[in-house]
Amino acid sequence: MAGRVYLDHAATTPLRPEVRQRMVEVLGEAWGNPSSLHAEGRAARAVVDQARVQVAELLGCRPREVVFTSGGTEADNLALKGVALAHRDRGRHIVTTAVEHPAVLEACAALERQGFEVTRVPVDGDGRVDPERVLAALRPDTILVSVMLVNNEVGTIQPVAEIAAAARARGVLVHTDAVQAAGVLLLDVEALGVDLLSLSAHKIGGPKGAGALYVRAGTQLLPLLDGGGQERRLRSGTENTAAIAGFGVAAELAARECRDRAARLARLQRRLEEGIRARIPDARIHGAGAPRAPHITNVGLPGVTADTVLIQLDLEGIAASSGSACSAGTPEPSHVLQAMGLAADEAFGAVRFSLGDGNSEADVDRVLEVLPRVVERARRAQALGLAGA
Amino acid sequence: MAGRVYLDHAATTPLRPEVRQRMVEVLGEAWGNPSSLHAEGRAARAVVDQARVQVAELLGCRPREVVFTSGGTEADNLALKGVALAHRDRGRHIVTTAVEHPAVLEACAALERQGFEVTRVPVDGDGRVDPERVLAALRPDTILVSVMLVNNEVGTIQPVAEIAAAARARGVLVHTDAVQAAGVLLLDVEALGVDLLSLSAHKIGGPKGAGALYVRAGTQLLPLLDGGGQERRLRSGTENTAAIAGFGVAAELAARECRDRAARLARLQRRLEEGIRARIPDARIHGAGAPRAPHITNVGLPGVTADTVLIQLDLEGIAASSGSACSAGTPEPSHVLQAMGLAADEAFGAVRFSLGDGNSEADVDRVLEVLPRVVERARRAQALGLAGA
Repeated sequence: MAGRVYLDHAATTPLRPEVRQRMVEVLGEAWGNPSSLHAEGRAARAVVDQARVQVAELLGCRPREVVFTSGGTEADNLALKGVALAHRDRGRHIVTTAVEHPAVLEACAALERQGFEVTRVPVDGDGRVDPERVLAALRPDTILVSVMLVNNEVGTIQPVAEIAAAARARGVLVHTDAVQAAGVLLLDVEALGVDLLSLSAHKIGGPKGAGALYVRAGTQLLPLLDGGGQERRLRSGTENTAAIAGFGVAAELAARECRDRAARLARLQRRLEEGIRARIPDARIHGAGAPRAPHITNVGLPGVTADTVLIQLDLEGIAASSGSACSAGTPEPSHVLQAMGLAADEAFGAVRFSLGDGNSEADVDRVLEVLPRVVERARRAQALGLAGA
Repeated sequence: MAGRVYLDHAATTPLRPEVRQRMVEVLGEAWGNPSSLHAEGRAARAVVDQARVQVAELLGCRPREVVFTSGGTEADNLALKGVALAHRDRGRHIVTTAVEHPAVLEACAALERQGFEVTRVPVDGDGRVDPERVLAALRPDTILVSVMLVNNEVGTIQPVAEIAAAARARGVLVHTDAVQAAGVLLLDVEALGVDLLSLSAHKIGGPKGAGALYVRAGTQLLPLLDGGGQERRLRSGTENTAAIAGFGVAAELAARECRDRAARLARLQRRLEEGIRARIPDARIHGAGAPRAPHITNVGLPGVTADTVLIQLDLEGIAASSGSACSAGTPEPSHVLQAMGLAADEAFGAVRFSLGDGNSEADVDRVLEVLPRVVERARRAQALGLAGA
């Protein structure tokens, strides 16, 4: 959208031109069913195979360890429920954190309704989980630990490698939701030491409708979707070839550009955060005390509700959010900010800006120009009891 | 692929130009997250809403009864497992047929491993299930009947409306996999009387990666994918906007063109089948004695294995299959043909031709020219013990 400043890349990213070009190509030329044995089928199979190599290279794993899914939510659900189904006779206890994405937390809640037990380890004021507390939660019947790599609301980086090393030493499988980490942190499943890792294409310039679960060779897992036996029987259903091809291109670009992108976004993030602190002295950057991803800035704005601010920003051409897009519009305060110890009214006053490839210093400066004015106006309205007006 | 004769539309269809155009538009302009509240999000939401109306019109249902999924396999799994999860306290028995798509049969097998019981009602020599036998299989603890509308391997049309009326009168939910029926049979959920109905976009000129489950208002169902609560909490995960938009266009075209397409395909089918019978006198059209969809012709060719014939056809520029693409390459004989009473060697000799929009009389005539020669050669090779050579 022309003239807009899009600062909600953690919700989704615009499609990269290279991705779109590849998708259009595949939609037109490789529309066959990858399971068909004739020429049309083999052409489609080659597209999926190529993308699998590209995603594997992003993760430092073997192509056959990549299971394509319809997105990050399905990857998380497959990890959690697939392990639960496969290991239920060995144990029914899962350890996770209080700040996971709803795809993990709601999958856990669904498993609880089926007789599993879930421990949600609390986090500190910066949203970071203490590895010792995760390990202390392990029990003899624990089958899985799931800790996200980068929190989607505040950007906090979790000590996944440390947790994984200790948990795996005790024979417990480890999953990480790396959806918000891809493209900004170097991902290497060996360095992380995890057994399962979730990715989503549309957070890294790829299309909606494709994601992947890394499944370490030898990991026992049962499918959520049964049928034709695609994806080594772990995910049945005709492969979404065009989206998978686009995901492959996005993964290749993410791997190649990650270091430079992270540095560039970190500079923009610093500019944004220093500017906000200077202009709105009582604003608080949530999670600022912990290692944080370079693309997410969650700002607490005392005396306003985020929705009022966001509507005004949107009218001024700036897209931001109040946290997870998945829970936008829900009347609940953020579970992440509450887990970090914020009161409900503080959580309701938080705005998330998330940076991406399209953003420039001018975009940041535009926010710094508009935000103080919008906040000021919202505070006055709110003080007069006109919230939401 | 230029010069090719594609006769595997039951496996997948080329993308229709109108669909591709819409998808390219959405990929470029409506890339927002439909759950976001800002302008970019609202634009994406409008795309999904429009497609929901288009799919609802194809089915004669309300838009809010359409749940978008990643495809037919997910829709089938959601129907079967979603009902099982939601109604397990009421009963754990499911009735289906022996000739369903693997997405239904394997979902049933997964449920059996979780303590459910499944009755697979046999079919007659034409692949048709007797409604009386389905009803006789109902028990007080039956929670669901799942009977496909059109069989994907032989095209037999099942008496779903008759089964649904009787089953629902006994308080049992009814699901139908209508993936192969869309675009060739008029679909109307009221006339069918079903509670749940599965669709797949890529079988009707739409993209891979989109499907839908019709869920009659008031039907209790639990999600397979938990998370952000999209699709009225029945299917979490960021919506695959471009594919959903393409599905909407394909659904609108399917509804508009269905009657004419069915008539046109029926003429081609008759030409194909009469031609095959005339040229290969011992060929057998499987399911010929039952009402059949106009796009699927399954031919038994005594004395050959289908794979040998298919490889030769492919070399001659003709794409056909040995049945479901989902089970292509598996060493098992077709479960559908076996359920119809064929011996394993007869089942291995069956070739499926499936017609679609791109096909002309010239395509059919090309098959009629090439097939007898290929079959003759395969028979001679096989008689000499050179099968597969």
